Amino acid sequence: MQAVQYTAFGQRPQLVEVEKPTPGPGEVLLRITASGLCHSDEVVMSFPEEGYPYPMPMTLGHEPAGVVEALGEGATGVEIGDSVIVYGCWGCGVCAMCASGREQLCLKGMVSPGLGVDGAMAEFMIVDTARHLVPIGDLDPVRAASLTDAALTPYQAIKKVLPHLMGGSTAVVIGAGGLGHVAIQLLRTLTSARVIALDVGDEKLEFAREMGAHEAVESNAGAAARIKELTGGVGADVVFDFVGIDPTGATAVAAVKVAGAVVLVGAGGGTAKVGFMAAPFDVEVRTSLWGTRASLIELVEMAHRGEIRIETQEYPISKALQAYADLHDGKVRGRAVVVPGA
Amino acid sequence: MQAVQYTAFGQRPQLVEVEKPTPGPGEVLLRITASGLCHSDEVVMSFPEEGYPYPMPMTLGHEPAGVVEALGEGATGVEIGDSVIVYGCWGCGVCAMCASGREQLCLKGMVSPGLGVDGAMAEFMIVDTARHLVPIGDLDPVRAASLTDAALTPYQAIKKVLPHLMGGSTAVVIGAGGLGHVAIQLLRTLTSARVIALDVGDEKLEFAREMGAHEAVESNAGAAARIKELTGGVGADVVFDFVGIDPTGATAVAAVKVAGAVVLVGAGGGTAKVGFMAAPFDVEVRTSLWGTRASLIELVEMAHRGEIRIETQEYPISKALQAYADLHDGKVRGRAVVVPGA
Amino acid sequence: MQAVQYTAFGQRPQLVEVEKPTPGPGEVLLRITASGLCHSDEVVMSFPEEGYPYPMPMTLGHEPAGVVEALGEGATGVEIGDSVIVYGCWGCGVCAMCASGREQLCLKGMVSPGLGVDGAMAEFMIVDTARHLVPIGDLDPVRAASLTDAALTPYQAIKKVLPHLMGGSTAVVIGAGGLGHVAIQLLRTLTSARVIALDVGDEKLEFAREMGAHEAVESNAGAAARIKELTGGVGADVVFDFVGIDPTGATAVAAVKVAGAVVLVGAGGGTAKVGFMAAPFDVEVRTSLWGTRASLIELVEMAHRGEIRIETQEYPISKALQAYADLHDGKVRGRAVVVPGA
Amino acid sequence: MQAVQYTAFGQRPQLVEVEKPTPGPGEVLLRITASGLCHSDEVVMSFPEEGYPYPMPMTLGHEPAGVVEALGEGATGVEIGDSVIVYGCWGCGVCAMCASGREQLCLKGMVSPGLGVDGAMAEFMIVDTARHLVPIGDLDPVRAASLTDAALTPYQAIKKVLPHLMGGSTAVVIGAGGLGHVAIQLLRTLTSARVIALDVGDEKLEFAREMGAHEAVESNAGAAARIKELTGGVGADVVFDFVGIDPTGATAVAAVKVAGAVVLVGAGGGTAKVGFMAAPFDVEVRTSLWGTRASLIELVEMAHRGEIRIETQEYPISKALQAYADLHDGKVRGRAVVVPGA
Repeated sequence: MQAVQYTAFGQRPQLVEVEKPTPGPGEVLLRITASGLCHSDEVVMSFPEEGYPYPMPMTLGHEPAGVVEALGEGATGVEIGDSVIVYGCWGCGVCAMCASGREQLCLKGMVSPGLGVDGAMAEFMIVDTARHLVPIGDLDPVRAASLTDAALTPYQAIKKVLPHLMGGSTAVVIGAGGLGHVAIQLLRTLTSARVIALDVGDEKLEFAREMGAHEAVESNAGAAARIKELTGGVGADVVFDFVGIDPTGATAVAAVKVAGAVVLVGAGGGTAKVGFMAAPFDVEVRTSLWGTRASLIELVEMAHRGEIRIETQEYPISKALQAYADLHDGKVRGRAVVVPGA
Repeated sequence: MQAVQYTAFGQRPQLVEVEKPTPGPGEVLLRITASGLCHSDEVVMSFPEEGYPYPMPMTLGHEPAGVVEALGEGATGVEIGDSVIVYGCWGCGVCAMCASGREQLCLKGMVSPGLGVDGAMAEFMIVDTARHLVPIGDLDPVRAASLTDAALTPYQAIKKVLPHLMGGSTAVVIGAGGLGHVAIQLLRTLTSARVIALDVGDEKLEFAREMGAHEAVESNAGAAARIKELTGGVGADVVFDFVGIDPTGATAVAAVKVAGAVVLVGAGGGTAKVGFMAAPFDVEVRTSLWGTRASLIELVEMAHRGEIRIETQEYPISKALQAYADLHDGKVRGRAVVVPGA
Repeated sequence: MQAVQYTAFGQRPQLVEVEKPTPGPGEVLLRITASGLCHSDEVVMSFPEEGYPYPMPMTLGHEPAGVVEALGEGATGVEIGDSVIVYGCWGCGVCAMCASGREQLCLKGMVSPGLGVDGAMAEFMIVDTARHLVPIGDLDPVRAASLTDAALTPYQAIKKVLPHLMGGSTAVVIGAGGLGHVAIQLLRTLTSARVIALDVGDEKLEFAREMGAHEAVESNAGAAARIKELTGGVGADVVFDFVGIDPTGATAVAAVKVAGAVVLVGAGGGTAKVGFMAAPFDVEVRTSLWGTRASLIELVEMAHRGEIRIETQEYPISKALQAYADLHDGKVRGRAVVVPGA
Repeated sequence: MQAVQYTAFGQRPQLVEVEKPTPGPGEVLLRITASGLCHSDEVVMSFPEEGYPYPMPMTLGHEPAGVVEALGEGATGVEIGDSVIVYGCWGCGVCAMCASGREQLCLKGMVSPGLGVDGAMAEFMIVDTARHLVPIGDLDPVRAASLTDAALTPYQAIKKVLPHLMGGSTAVVIGAGGLGHVAIQLLRTLTSARVIALDVGDEKLEFAREMGAHEAVESNAGAAARIKELTGGVGADVVFDFVGIDPTGATAVAAVKVAGAVVLVGAGGGTAKVGFMAAPFDVEVRTSLWGTRASLIELVEMAHRGEIRIETQEYPISKALQAYADLHDGKVRGRAVVVPGA
């Protein structure tokens, strides 16, 4: 079968022919119907060789949708033919974090398809256990695939700080890209917060407004002051940073109000500096990684209700390398999705 | 000045002429611009004579809007001419509950205008301290008056259980009257919950749908079963009971899902029966009284954003007794408001 | 092997000889080192024949400790010889409740050893998956067995209302028996709450004091008034009802303070009546079923630290029927535990 | 009367003779019975002249205990002769933060005695309103004075993260000085957490152990590694930083576990660097300022129960300058308290 793999350090991914896998005991074989691309893929491909944590080569793709093609021995809980998406945080299932439903924080270290084992950027993939599949019924798999990360990650970030988003509140979303554009929609449907989006360039600001942002502000050194101005001088109740570089961290801390919250999601490698005298009083600054399976189940119900629309650009698997090039060049509006069957 | 007072046990209220009051030290005199009627007024007038807790006669009205007319000695924090609404839970300000911002639960017992001291159903009223005034700027006082109870009470009830109302959730509102019709709107703007309203008769069900309910169900012995049906057999995440009689309490407990929540708000005098084996597992059943001043400040901001529309029927003060008659007879759609200056 | 089974409706349990079981794929065979008795066993044996939900006969015992004797095919996560206790809420692992770490509320209905499948009152038992085993290292299995229910159930009840148990608070424990005597200890170590225990008879009150209760009060019609007296007239922050009959439910609601909490745990078949005007303002009344696996892991760590001491009365398996008789007759102080190897 | 004032930039405080104040309308005059010294006093005296926010000269002292000596006109809620302590966060009482019981975060900016207006380091002081007094009954004022900050500040910090401190958890206290030594005690009584204290030098580590720390570790570059070692490699559930310099911030972030919490309390002027890839996953880092009046009321109850013992070194007012010198030189064990009547 065809698969998109990361095959050599510092190189772009390759479209290769590999053997179709066979499910072992308890495993499930999926025929992939859609596979979302994520900035994390680029982050992985920029890791240095020394200390690189994953196998090489490895099939990319951690936003899978598929149809159950075959069941390994003893696998129960799904049926052949079920349309599903794959929860990507494969924890041990046994440790205290997994026991509390937070497999993304597995104390033994989770693995993920495309981030440790072969992923969804292929015609077929193996899922380790039926527990990691969430049925989607008649949802369009192309739109549903990215629920697994592009929607789950901002959804979990929002749930962490929901008590801050009461009536009359304001939320800031820094970065209206693959995750941020979903964050804007989720904030609009889950809360009554006024949403201010920050990004760079008119096109992205316009996109943020289309997604539901009440205000869209150029992300630069003056952004925090502009947010203060838009909030009567008090600042935002919550700031979500989907970029994660030093300047956005600084904007976040400067723009949040007393007793407000900052959530750092973007893997940009920067930090926010927090101190008793170097931040608003009683602020909380959180990091947030991916999400829980329970949250993904909630998102699927929201998708059935039509409350989330992930903007997608579809590519057949033959154009998958072009998709990665577009992602790398910042040319993707919303989420790029490879559709093997297209 | 004219005032609507409760003057004799078992009688309907009277429109009487009383002296215009003068503010004492720290007090504020308001010229009333709007005064909402509430079912609680009827409850008070049905109390037995023995043990009746309030003065007699007493001016009714605990949903006041007004303009600051005069300040007592030492009163600070508002200016003459300010347009305000009155937070009605007048606690001691000193006890542990007041210290935590919950004056409605004052350990010494709160008093309220119209429920312990003379209220807003008059041309003027005294407010004990500027702390109990919330500025409304250019909001229409007729629509803003009822924020103080008809909106604050359901808002507080919803805040108590907001963690239950995540993506994909369902909320039930029993009773789509003065408070319930605001609850429906608040749920629609504050959450993504699917809202099922219960009431009696086609007219009220239609009104509930107009207010934003996704479903409107006749409130009868089969209602809980219907809710289960509408929720795929699992029940509602939250049930709000704005009626508060035994049958609605039973419906609430029967219709809520495992690990869900029931909030009892209505002063109908009934109870819900809760037991380990007589309710869904891990359910929580709460009572909720009025709300906090902080919440009222949030509601005013929501009103400025146009997120709450309290349906009102206006009456001049000369027709105030008719307003009470209509309330008593169930003829009010939304909230009856007396407008002394009309 | 020997096993204690419930074999006929309305009869006492029987000590019978049954075949030693063999673990299927993914299953684990335990050699039982200790097996706690619980009032729930008596409740099950009082169920009417019609609608009885479990197989008949069935080996009792849902508080197992054991040593891993054999692994079924594909079972991973434990090693032969590991000393473990068994988490008794065997959910599907797939549904939204299981996904959130609450297997006890599994939407498909959990089964438990001794409550649906053969339990621990035998020389050996089968556990469905290694996920349901928690290693206990060098803890004494006789004391550790009852962590799985007698400690887990009150621990989960306490966690539900922990925000109520701040500095200066008061907690009431109704029923100082198998669960209640652990609740007292847990409250003492987890919080600074003053603990008032309610039970019947001097011996039980003395036992409650030994377990750490600051006060022990006879559980009767005057108990709520006595609690009010002991709390300066305001009532208790939290009341835990480990009995669950109508009178204890009434005591709980009468003794709790404004904005306080009641947790109903006891399976006595009664209810608490809750209403806006029939309970303190802003009270919450919760039911609580067993607990989560994450909580059990926490309890094992507490046991390692010596923070919980479950009072046990040991019986060899040959005296297991005597143990059930003693339980039935209220003669057990703390927890009765059958030790098959004794 | 005698008063200790800050009278000139860059100088040590002075003992001066000033006029005994007279209470205005609503105000209360206290005869000071005890007045705690705090590192914040030193911080204030190190502020640069430009932008210095307070009057000059100003009487120091923001941890007051006293007896009500006289009431201004209209002041109610206390009686002459009442023994009280003073809640030091004097907010406007009207804004959204004050309305929610968080006067320390007053949107108009709180003032405090000794930090904006004349404080307690004198024979008498003025309190702006009776609302800011908390009766202490027969508590020793010397030990009770520091409840207002040295206990309130760590108590509030702990309350913010209490859900992290379940059974089996570990808490780290960096800095076992004036606030930290109370934090250790509070953690021991309010939670079952294992407490690891960090400080510099054997004497302070021994003091931390006396206060209840299970472990005391030298605060240096290896401290985070030592904490990991003591927690089986996973890190602490919560780290409290009562120092607040860059190295302690770095230790805190390095020592906390996945999904854990850091609370920054110390006004040392440093920061903690937090980022998605520069901190454990799903960590929260909070700043915490002083506390609420509701919390102070809880602390007084805890003090009545004997659960907090603030270590004090008493000085008569004639030795107040010596007290400040000792504080400055790090010679105070626990809290220095000036006792004007001594």
